[in-house]
Amino acid sequence: MAKQKIINGVNVEQLLSTIDTIRDKPEIAKFKFRATNKWVNGGHNRTASKDFYGAGQEDTSRPNPLVFEEDEPPVLLGENHGANPVEYALTALAGCLTTSLIYHAAARGIKIDEVESKLEGDLDLHGFLGLSDSVRNGYENIHVTFKVKADAPKEHLEELIELAKKRSPVFDIVTNSVPVSVKLEQ
Amino acid sequence: MAKQKIINGVNVEQLLSTIDTIRDKPEIAKFKFRATNKWVNGGHNRTASKDFYGAGQEDTSRPNPLVFEEDEPPVLLGENHGANPVEYALTALAGCLTTSLIYHAAARGIKIDEVESKLEGDLDLHGFLGLSDSVRNGYENIHVTFKVKADAPKEHLEELIELAKKRSPVFDIVTNSVPVSVKLEQ
Repeated sequence: MAKQKIINGVNVEQLLSTIDTIRDKPEIAKFKFRATNKWVNGGHNRTASKDFYGAGQEDTSRPNPLVFEEDEPPVLLGENHGANPVEYALTALAGCLTTSLIYHAAARGIKIDEVESKLEGDLDLHGFLGLSDSVRNGYENIHVTFKVKADAPKEHLEELIELAKKRSPVFDIVTNSVPVSVKLEQ
Repeated sequence: MAKQKIINGVNVEQLLSTIDTIRDKPEIAKFKFRATNKWVNGGHNRTASKDFYGAGQEDTSRPNPLVFEEDEPPVLLGENHGANPVEYALTALAGCLTTSLIYHAAARGIKIDEVESKLEGDLDLHGFLGLSDSVRNGYENIHVTFKVKADAPKEHLEELIELAKKRSPVFDIVTNSVPVSVKLEQ
């Protein structure tokens, strides 16, 4: 039996075979990710994710829900029971850029030793508080800085950063517009 | 000493006094939220948030970083060490809509008993894998359903949902475009 080809912890044979399978059966590329949220008190609420639909079936690989406490810090009237929602947005962006970089490097046979990133987003409360029509509610901008250690010249690493931006689902979600419907169920 | 006015767990006097203070000193509304991320292996990486800048100073109210494991499920070549980045994006959106609803209800004197929400986002892997130029990388759409229990007629609750959409920072981040710079530091 041939040894499995693992690069950066990614099973490259399985990745390439997934790509081939999707070429033959485009419908297996359709995923539905989910979350449920329950308000606790004040700025404190709790989100859970467990099952999702993907590769043609309901995924049940997680025995328990993944649970996230969300709260505001005291300066925003909360009690620090968890990160606040805009910090979770940075978490989503950081993780997605990193995974996109790692998976696409693996597919190209580029071995990565270390990846670290720092993110900072500017947010002006005038928007959330409805104090100014000219200030948006969300981040005015986000700056991401990567450090990558790999046995590759700097221009290849720059290409990987560009590829991560080009392919990352959360980078697309943040930098472009996603239609969101919000309805009240009684 | 007058009893503090607390509605939905939100200190309404502090909220209104924050709004007044920002009217006088617009610069205290400027916040900088942060996250750091470190790749672990394969689809597994780890994000941390701790300090941020806000209300004119560095906030140090959190003794320890808030740490989030991110990973992919096995069908996406990971090992379920944590939620995946697009699930963190739903977490951010869920928490932010809920907190926006609760805070703005409190500011209007509307007492809320319960808030729950369910979110589902459609994502087609053709984008991430670079298999189609006509399929975006991120969510094609997100559907959010709220259940709200409060001693208020349905039309007031519908107004609160609209207000949550209108004021939520993460709803803005997801439904509109945020400029994101990504650079490589050596």
